[in-house]
Amino acid sequence: MRFGIIGTGTVGRTLAGKLASLGHEVALGSRTKDNPAALAWAEQAGPSGHSGTFAEAAEFGELVINATSGTVSLQALRAAGESRLAGKVLLDVSNPLVFSATGEVSLDPVNTDSIGEQIQREFPGARVVKGLNTVNAMVMVDPGRVPGAHNLFVAGEDVEAKAQVTAVLEQFGWPAGSVLDLGGIKAARGMEMLMPFWLQLMGHFGHADFNYSIRTAG
Amino acid sequence: MRFGIIGTGTVGRTLAGKLASLGHEVALGSRTKDNPAALAWAEQAGPSGHSGTFAEAAEFGELVINATSGTVSLQALRAAGESRLAGKVLLDVSNPLVFSATGEVSLDPVNTDSIGEQIQREFPGARVVKGLNTVNAMVMVDPGRVPGAHNLFVAGEDVEAKAQVTAVLEQFGWPAGSVLDLGGIKAARGMEMLMPFWLQLMGHFGHADFNYSIRTAG
Repeated sequence: MRFGIIGTGTVGRTLAGKLASLGHEVALGSRTKDNPAALAWAEQAGPSGHSGTFAEAAEFGELVINATSGTVSLQALRAAGESRLAGKVLLDVSNPLVFSATGEVSLDPVNTDSIGEQIQREFPGARVVKGLNTVNAMVMVDPGRVPGAHNLFVAGEDVEAKAQVTAVLEQFGWPAGSVLDLGGIKAARGMEMLMPFWLQLMGHFGHADFNYSIRTAG
Repeated sequence: MRFGIIGTGTVGRTLAGKLASLGHEVALGSRTKDNPAALAWAEQAGPSGHSGTFAEAAEFGELVINATSGTVSLQALRAAGESRLAGKVLLDVSNPLVFSATGEVSLDPVNTDSIGEQIQREFPGARVVKGLNTVNAMVMVDPGRVPGAHNLFVAGEDVEAKAQVTAVLEQFGWPAGSVLDLGGIKAARGMEMLMPFWLQLMGHFGHADFNYSIRTAG
């Protein structure tokens, strides 16, 4: 399958590398064609790895992944272009973290809106699925870094799109049944609002190799 | 030990009942002295159960629990009176849920502040601990309703106060080590911001007998 990845940060490159290692064709997209991180990634990825602009990556992908920081995601997806996203599954893995001058972390949007919802509203032709934003990049593609059973979550309006994303996550090593469907794209709010709690847990443990296991009766 | 509970809703009555059943003396406080729920609770609780005003409950308790809705907690604690909270452990189990006319749920405060922090700021003499707000009332006092190992969280400035709260939670049946200390009272933000995600999970499972187990490497 062909994947277009919007964003060349740690998350984008980690997902791109895993997808290429699974035999998929991957285009890693950046704002400019000459992004050194993207060029270096494509070179070491071999023949199935490509780099280009946001628009080229979106055009290339049958499934597109937004791996930019949440605060610039809309801007990046506008550059990718609405027509290149229309009809495609768009997996949004972003978190809208804002860092203040004093180092304080907050979210924008939050509470009554989310990046996932904003993307779906602005790109109504895209089949937006919120997912993977609740774990560290390394855990996303290697759930075995965290022992035992633990969970991921998806949210979105399109059931078939969520099933496609879940199938990709199973290729990453997430066991069948470990990905919980939280409902429509509005559930992206709660998923994004996990981030402050996640950061506190990272402080508590001193590393990012942890995750939520949802225990339930019955 | 003597507990004063501020708030006669499901959470307050559930905590009061569990504490009385463990042999503690409990005063359940409400806005007015003649609150039917508080009177009925005290009658069935027997000699160790008492009811009264917010001020009377706060005066009675060596440890005070805020079990009011987060949106009215400051008002209730003002009625309890700063002098009756000074020097005491004040366990804040509230969530600041706001329900819109259309049934939409949001939090206020959120993101850059929390009820836990607001309480600590307004009552600097109280030793505020945020805790228990991440699970349903029945699970708070009976963790065995959810199978396997799962976690609670505490946040607050006073390490000894957090240890006292953790000891009470162990009396409720939470195993040693299951209560994670997330740091200072600012961590209340992340704990309160779990609520939208929790509500989505409740929708997914169709009941409230679930909880987070934090799985971690190493």
